[in-house]
Order: sequence, then C-alpha cells, then structure tokens
Amino acid sequence: MSGRHLFFLSDFGLGDPYVGLMKARALAEGFGGTMVDLSHGIPPGDVPRGVAMLEDCLPWLPAGAVVCAVVDPGVGGARAALAARAGGMAFVGPDNGLLTPVLRQADCTVRAIDPERLGLPMPSATFHGRDVFAPIAARIAAGLLSVDDTGPAPSSEPVLLDLPLPVPCEGGGLELTVLYVDGFGNAALNLRSDALPRNAGVEFHLGGRPLGSLQRTYGDVAPGQPLVYVNSFGRIEVAVRGGSAARELPLPPGATIVMKTAGTGE
Amino acid sequence: MSGRHLFFLSDFGLGDPYVGLMKARALAEGFGGTMVDLSHGIPPGDVPRGVAMLEDCLPWLPAGAVVCAVVDPGVGGARAALAARAGGMAFVGPDNGLLTPVLRQADCTVRAIDPERLGLPMPSATFHGRDVFAPIAARIAAGLLSVDDTGPAPSSEPVLLDLPLPVPCEGGGLELTVLYVDGFGNAALNLRSDALPRNAGVEFHLGGRPLGSLQRTYGDVAPGQPLVYVNSFGRIEVAVRGGSAARELPLPPGATIVMKTAGTGE
Amino acid sequence: MSGRHLFFLSDFGLGDPYVGLMKARALAEGFGGTMVDLSHGIPPGDVPRGVAMLEDCLPWLPAGAVVCAVVDPGVGGARAALAARAGGMAFVGPDNGLLTPVLRQADCTVRAIDPERLGLPMPSATFHGRDVFAPIAARIAAGLLSVDDTGPAPSSEPVLLDLPLPVPCEGGGLELTVLYVDGFGNAALNLRSDALPRNAGVEFHLGGRPLGSLQRTYGDVAPGQPLVYVNSFGRIEVAVRGGSAARELPLPPGATIVMKTAGTGE
Repeated sequence: MSGRHLFFLSDFGLGDPYVGLMKARALAEGFGGTMVDLSHGIPPGDVPRGVAMLEDCLPWLPAGAVVCAVVDPGVGGARAALAARAGGMAFVGPDNGLLTPVLRQADCTVRAIDPERLGLPMPSATFHGRDVFAPIAARIAAGLLSVDDTGPAPSSEPVLLDLPLPVPCEGGGLELTVLYVDGFGNAALNLRSDALPRNAGVEFHLGGRPLGSLQRTYGDVAPGQPLVYVNSFGRIEVAVRGGSAARELPLPPGATIVMKTAGTGE
Repeated sequence: MSGRHLFFLSDFGLGDPYVGLMKARALAEGFGGTMVDLSHGIPPGDVPRGVAMLEDCLPWLPAGAVVCAVVDPGVGGARAALAARAGGMAFVGPDNGLLTPVLRQADCTVRAIDPERLGLPMPSATFHGRDVFAPIAARIAAGLLSVDDTGPAPSSEPVLLDLPLPVPCEGGGLELTVLYVDGFGNAALNLRSDALPRNAGVEFHLGGRPLGSLQRTYGDVAPGQPLVYVNSFGRIEVAVRGGSAARELPLPPGATIVMKTAGTGE
Repeated sequence: MSGRHLFFLSDFGLGDPYVGLMKARALAEGFGGTMVDLSHGIPPGDVPRGVAMLEDCLPWLPAGAVVCAVVDPGVGGARAALAARAGGMAFVGPDNGLLTPVLRQADCTVRAIDPERLGLPMPSATFHGRDVFAPIAARIAAGLLSVDDTGPAPSSEPVLLDLPLPVPCEGGGLELTVLYVDGFGNAALNLRSDALPRNAGVEFHLGGRPLGSLQRTYGDVAPGQPLVYVNSFGRIEVAVRGGSAARELPLPPGATIVMKTAGTGE
C-alpha cells in the first residue's frame, strides 16, 4: 500500500531541529506523502503523557495512518525498538510503554525492529527518532516495508504502561486524577464518559469545593466559574470558563478530584 | 476547483494534538493538497488578535486559498459556524467576529454551516475545529463542496468585530493603540501607513518620551534605540533595534502612543 | 530539476504568522512539493546559533534539498541577499555569516540575489523572508530558477562567521564553550568527536567538578547524574540524565568546560 499518511508524536519540542530532521530522513527514504505533527509538546521523557495523547488521538486518525511516536529517555540502552500494526494502522516507537494503547488492541501484531537487517546505519546513540523510527515509519508509509518485515517477534513481552485508574474513596465516591493539562489550562481526568453511572447524575468536588454536576460546554457556566464536562476525547475534564483551571483552582497534573453519585453521597 | 491549499489559524497552540487532529480530519475527508499553519499562537480566546492576524495575512495568501480559522470561546453554544467566500478564497470559522476582515469585503458571500445536512456527526461540544471547521474546509479545498452548499444564509447578520480606531487627542495628534506584540517584541499599532498624512512628516511620543519620526528599517537607528516604522503588513509599528519594544519601553498590547504632525504639534 | 524539497530555518518563532506566510509565498510562486520546518526556534537575531544549527542539519538533508534560512537582524539595510549551491543542494539567506557552513564547502557557488532582475516587488523593508528568500527558494525548488540565475557574483566576499574554537588552558587541557542548549537542557560544546585525541581517554571538568570521561548514552550514568557524550550531530555534549544540564549544573550558552587527557592532566 502506498500513499499512507505519516504522523509524528514526540517530546522533542519545536525549538530544535529534531522534528525537522525526522522529516528530512523520511523524505530521504523516499516518502512522498503528507506528514502531520500530532504534537511534540509532551514534557521531556514523560512517557505516561505520551500514552494518554496517543490514546486520545487514535480514534481520529485516518485509515492506514502510520505513526512515529518517540518519547524515549532510554534511547541507546537495552530497550527494543518496536513496530506494530493494529486496526489497519502502523506504529513505531520505543519499547517503554509508549505504544500501550496500540499494544492493547486485540488485532495488534508487534515486531522488534532489527536495524542491521534493514540496512540502517546507527550513527548516534541518542537520536533514534532520526536514525531508526522515522526511516522505518517512512518506509512503511511509502509501501516499501511491512511491519512484519521489520524484525522478529520481541524476545520478551513489550512493556505496558497503563494510566492510573480511579480509586474508590473511603467516604464513598471515586477519586479521579488529572492526567494532563492542555494549553487552555483544562485538566483532563482519568475517567471516560462511558464509565459514568448510567442511571444517576454525578457531582464533583475539589477538596471541600463543589464543582457541580456534568456540564455540556463552557457557556453553561458564568465567566470565571469552573465546570466539569466531557472533553473532545471522551474524558472527564475540568475547565474554568475564560480562564485556566490548572492555574486557578489549581489543578496541575496529578491533582485529584472526587466524584460522587448525586444525592447519595457515593 | 480541486487542489486548493488549506491554511489554519487558531488559538490552539502546538503543545496539544488539536492542530494535528484538525489535519488528520482533513486527510480523512480526502484532502490531498498542502496544509499550512498560519499561526496557532493567538492567545486563548483572543478573538481581536485573530481578527488582526487574519487581516494581516489576507493579502499574502495564494489564489484560491481556503482558511480554517478557529478562535472559539463560545464553542458548543448558540453561535453559528460560518463558511464564506471572498476574493476567490474560502473561509470557515465561528460567528463571533473572527472573520470580520473577510465579511467586510464587497464580494463576500456567507453561509451558516449546517452540520446535519452535510452528514457531519458532532461528537463533541468543545472541539468544532476537528468536528466541523476542518472537515468543511477540507471538503471545500478538495473541490468536494462549495461554500454555497454548506448551509443557508445566516438567520441574523454575522457578528462584526472591528479593531479599535485611533482617537484624536485633546492637545492635538492621534492616540494609537498597540494591537499586538510579535515574538521579537515589536508592537504593532492600529494605524496603517496609507492613513498617514500625505504632505507632512509625523512624530511619535510614548508618554513624554519622543520616539522620533518614521524610519524605514531597524538599521536606521543605533542598537538599543527605539524606532517607529511601517511593518511588513503596512501597520505602524514600534521596535527597539536588537531588543524588545514590548518589554523595554514597555509597550504591551493595549498601550498607547501619540502621533503628531511634525512641526505643528498636531 | 523539479520536485526538490524545501526546508526552512529561522528565528521567527511559531507564535506569529511569519513562517506561514513564507510558505504561502512559496505556494504562490508555484512550488508544489514538501515543505519542512527545520526549526524556527533560533533566539531572535542570534546568527551564531543559526550557523551551528545549519552546520548540524546539513549532513542529514536529502539530496537536492533547498534551504531557506533567515536570521536577519540587518534586514532592509545594505547587506546582500545570497543564493548558494553546494553538494547538490541550494541555499538562500542574508549575507551576514548565517550561511557560513555552506560557503565553506569546496564546491560552493554563490550569487547576490537581484530582486529587481527577478521581477520581485519589495513591499517591505523588514520581512525579506516573505518578500525575497521564500520566493527565490521556492522557484529554485520548483525548478523554475537556478542559483546561477539569481544574480551576479557578490561584489565583495560574503561574510563568514566561524564558531568559537576550543582554547588551550594554561594548566593543560582545552577550554570548551557551550554553543547552544536544546529543549532537554543538553549543552552542546564547540568540539566534534573527530577532533578528540585518538590514543588517550579524556576527562571533563566544570569548574572544580569532575564530569567523568566520555559516555555513550544517558543510561550509562545514574538518574540525576551528569554525563558527557557525543551528541547526534557529532558534537561533545553535556547532559544530566532525566534532568537539565543547562539549568542544574548550570551550563547556559557561553559557559565553559575543561577537557583533559585522562591520566596526564593535559
């Protein structure tokens, strides 16, 4: 298959030429399609943030997408480099848990990339984005290489890194954790709307402060007021209308919120 | 018409996957041309900054450009989603004034996008960039949809948001306002060079401090000195050579400068 | 030759529409290939940082690459605009030293761009990225113009800006300087690995603090510990595993490290 689109996700930021050089390498491998940055704003080395972002993005990628995902603090060490396919898409990235949302899919096939077999020189020990992941992803996207041919099955089970689950509170309700904060200061929690109770409303509390029940959008509360709603990825999220929930409530990554079933105290 | 280029302008920043997912959605709709980010650095929810940026960019876009513009604090509320064409280009964006520079054009045709009629599911109340604006812009750019077919004429006049005008001073001269500050710290004012007096020089003052007459470029003053000149969009702008006018003078957005006709005190 | 890829490198940042408008201009000139941002994160006006980045990127660009490089504090002044070709690639940029890594190549041909002869209107004195460099680079990349036809040979030798060399220490060893710090806080020095002594190990010192000998990758030291290694561009670099060398040691641009030949004190 040729003409697949190539997506990049990393913690490289955009201040340095790292992202540009991954793309230069993809072009040098003969890729001629469209390259899209999902984001390079993952905090340096923050693999869990990468997991959450990949999980958020997956349902929205076009058919046949190829994703080059690099959050790789162990680069140059013993960790394997993986290629995987699932749902008609292909993925490359380090074996450090980053690809968990892909590896958890029922139809996932995974390989341990063998750079030598693929004729890849390894000029650096610290930039496998340029030296391994981008060229492999580019070859897959260009139809020059299949995931199956990138290497053998991994010699051990790939690392899985699951996001924290909600925790039942002693006094009833669930304790939810802020997974990440976006550029608007909105704080996304570790609960999806499809896990909400079906037959009862819910109410949210930050410490002693009530944050109300589930709203639909920002305009449902007055300017400057907090609200809880389902974000565009299906996660429960806290915002302040016209402000930053992360800064003003505050709700940095790792902070907790309690959700109770309305009226029952549970 | 097929093969039109697709431009994006938003307040989404680049730290999150929002921009990448607008592009993913455009590709999923079958768009196969070139996508260009004008900027995603508009401060969150700052519609006037978006208006000024769109006005600055318009004269420099290639023929047939399609622009997806999203600064949309009222997303999910009652505001309409607009599609417009003017000057051979097409635009989509929220009905909150953002598209004013387009709507003010004599040949502008505007429609209220009807997502249901266009077969667009609306999975979220807070990310119409991905769910409405990007797919509509992509279809228009791919030649699959015309602006006229995006929906009916708006049921009420689209919102217009005009930038502040210069204000005559009591003691003579004009008070100009800083519309925005760029990454170099240059402060752009709300006056275009074609509105300058034709037969007289002008002089600029910040509080009691004289900033001199109109210069051509940075090298016309000594390093570290302020200068006033016509920026690359035709706006009067204040810079400090080799420094940041916004920080050093200081001249943040909203600050004011007085312009007087040279020699007359007016 | 048509179908060459177009790369951009500048100090424009991504908050403003400057980069987007260079690309808009390239499209308006008829360029239809792939455009890649190497980086726009060079600090405003920091030509030496641009030189180092261009030098780092050059070996990794695909055959036939065309590079539009703009760090141009003297824009609108007397400095020439250059077009150059070397190694099968083409480059445009200001004559202020930015293109030094290209101009130093044995097979380099350089021209002084003549905008008038090329039919380029010059609407602004402060944004030659949009008005000169992008359209010329686009025409070259589209096969519409050759470097030789951009203008005459420069009337004087192009400006060369060489990066600082290591300095021998009075007490033996070499004093190395931090050329730049990347987004991970890694500090790259002004020495390449191919200039290391061949038959002896080396040791590094920051003030009185020993930083050890040359390591291969981050995992070779304990978390939180500093290490010195060869970065992905072949430069000697200092990092802190899981942290920021620039902030924690600290090692900002311009700071110095001493390298001694192991065991000899030299």
